[in-house]
Amino acid sequence: MDNFNFYSPTEFVFGRDREDECGELCKKYGAKKVLVHYGGGSAVKSGLIARITASLDKAGIEHTELGGVKPNPRDTLVYEGIELCRKQDIDFILAVGGGSVADSSKAIASGVCYDGDFWDLYCGKAQIQKALPVGVVLTIAAAGSEGSSSSVITKEEGRLKRGTHSDLIRPKFSILDPQLTCTLPAYQTACGATDIMAHVFERYFTNTPEVEITDRLCEAVLLTVIKEAPRAVKEPDNYDARANIMWAATVAHNDIVGVGRSQDWNSHGIEHELSGLYDVAHGAGLAVVMPAWMEFVYKHDVMRFCQMATRVFGCEMNFGDPEKTALEGIRCFRRFLHEIGMPINFEELGAKREDIPTLANNMAIKYTTRGFVKLSRDDVCSILEIAADAKL
Amino acid sequence: MDNFNFYSPTEFVFGRDREDECGELCKKYGAKKVLVHYGGGSAVKSGLIARITASLDKAGIEHTELGGVKPNPRDTLVYEGIELCRKQDIDFILAVGGGSVADSSKAIASGVCYDGDFWDLYCGKAQIQKALPVGVVLTIAAAGSEGSSSSVITKEEGRLKRGTHSDLIRPKFSILDPQLTCTLPAYQTACGATDIMAHVFERYFTNTPEVEITDRLCEAVLLTVIKEAPRAVKEPDNYDARANIMWAATVAHNDIVGVGRSQDWNSHGIEHELSGLYDVAHGAGLAVVMPAWMEFVYKHDVMRFCQMATRVFGCEMNFGDPEKTALEGIRCFRRFLHEIGMPINFEELGAKREDIPTLANNMAIKYTTRGFVKLSRDDVCSILEIAADAKL
Repeated sequence: MDNFNFYSPTEFVFGRDREDECGELCKKYGAKKVLVHYGGGSAVKSGLIARITASLDKAGIEHTELGGVKPNPRDTLVYEGIELCRKQDIDFILAVGGGSVADSSKAIASGVCYDGDFWDLYCGKAQIQKALPVGVVLTIAAAGSEGSSSSVITKEEGRLKRGTHSDLIRPKFSILDPQLTCTLPAYQTACGATDIMAHVFERYFTNTPEVEITDRLCEAVLLTVIKEAPRAVKEPDNYDARANIMWAATVAHNDIVGVGRSQDWNSHGIEHELSGLYDVAHGAGLAVVMPAWMEFVYKHDVMRFCQMATRVFGCEMNFGDPEKTALEGIRCFRRFLHEIGMPINFEELGAKREDIPTLANNMAIKYTTRGFVKLSRDDVCSILEIAADAKL
Repeated sequence: MDNFNFYSPTEFVFGRDREDECGELCKKYGAKKVLVHYGGGSAVKSGLIARITASLDKAGIEHTELGGVKPNPRDTLVYEGIELCRKQDIDFILAVGGGSVADSSKAIASGVCYDGDFWDLYCGKAQIQKALPVGVVLTIAAAGSEGSSSSVITKEEGRLKRGTHSDLIRPKFSILDPQLTCTLPAYQTACGATDIMAHVFERYFTNTPEVEITDRLCEAVLLTVIKEAPRAVKEPDNYDARANIMWAATVAHNDIVGVGRSQDWNSHGIEHELSGLYDVAHGAGLAVVMPAWMEFVYKHDVMRFCQMATRVFGCEMNFGDPEKTALEGIRCFRRFLHEIGMPINFEELGAKREDIPTLANNMAIKYTTRGFVKLSRDDVCSILEIAADAKL
């Protein structure tokens, strides 16, 4: 096990109707004037935004709203939010939505406190030194941004998707009410489940030996999603399935399952190029990329893939031919993704084979020098070729 | 799943030689004058206290030392610590040791800020309203106090063991260097492993349905201890075994494996009376009590015990007679405890059958109205009878 620091100071407030406490929570964390940041109209139509602002009013906290966050949140709205906060002396950002809204809120929170262009903090030109406090009312279980130190933003010009991380943008509190996720369509539910699994797998495939505790914790989250996601897809109103998935999403990404070990993140790197270019859902992109990545790298550590196959997907170990077990595990993963309604190849995703060189070029800039297996540009092309043609 | 709050703001600093950072960490959390609180002479003899004070000196932080914490830490030393802190204007307590030292430090930290007798905070007469910040340099993986909101102190007069909890006594930071646990004798290592497993089982046996994520996380910790504890007992210097156990101990007790579900804690309640009366190691007492408790209550939820037997101890499910599987799981647990060197009955523990009524009377005051199965005084007697005579 490697040396590590683990710091997750977010107060998680979980359960039915907890969003009604958001006014008091903002007050507890020092808010005087809050920017309520959200996505499309559904949060307004459902009455959620009205409940949030009523809770803020009750706590005597001023507020301004800024909606319009899109999936794969854009730099353009971040600039708008920063300007609004500066003009109105906003001192707290309250994200009401999924990972995109949380990420956009983190970008605004750090951008307000940065003198230059906020994109500097995302493209590696500068580090976050200060940020407004952020709170989250979560409506989608997926990204884990509610308990993470990271944020990903897409630059409209050139459609580049880039991320940053800092303990300074960890939410002060995150309200997790599984009821709010019960209205999510099956497709988005499945995208969320895929993202959760991917967050775990990015940590699971490691070159650090002797990491039993984090291996087992990773498997705990994966087994939970495998049990609960099909239930939530079939019965959207199933509170218990939604609750288990929602807490699994947070645990999957606050790094408690990933400390003390090298991690991969190349599947996320490749997927960011896909959703940057085509604006597809992040989870859908991962469903296409991650099994392909697994097929490309499994020979690097066959036994680790056998561990996944047996412990996570319940495969029988083939002691005479372990590679067969490894491949069977990957097949189980892809089959599971298909069964919950995810695309498994380029056609189903809406991606184009001819874009593979462009995707690989963009990817090559950032990600290929790290991970479980270091990837060259050609390796990324090979993975995308596997992804393009994948079958059950 | 039940509604819950989860808040674990402690900064965990894990790995080789991280204790050399304690001066900087104390400074980061505002310390000007630190009480270095520790146990017996081993921390001095090993040179650890000298390294700690050197690190404090280097960071320009004043310090005073107070050693002498015993297992099952006493109120008498807490009073002494409180007085010392007040006299010397101490503003930070640094615990260097295991759970007993951490618990004693938490008692001093809250006692200094309380006008009355600190015991009020432990016997239920008053709530903690304020506390000095606490940091921990951990030398034993067991109690989980390094990441918990709780503390247990024994009143010398009458040997009563009582606990308190409050977010205000959660450590600001905890330094976890597995190397520091490599000198622990096999017996103490096994006691620690038992305590970790017990912390999980107290949460695992719940009446809350639909808690797959926390069930799986519980099992992750248990499977890790089952793999790593025998290794650490046989090869005390095995860094990786020690590291996995150390992080498992923290995860087992910061409540991430226990949120959103009713918990039990009656085995701890019974054990506190045993170690209060005989001054035996807490883990050793748990090894005797917990399997006996399981045998007494398993019929309350046979399937949950089957889940433990199959998922944790790898038993085959007997679909024709599930009770047999449930009992086989409990047998596996007791056998495991025996194999790592723990006592499994009163004789091996050094407890006396004739004290059972006294033990049950003390216990009856506090614990019997809650838990997986509510226990009457007679039930506690029955559990202790089972414990007294237990065999492999």
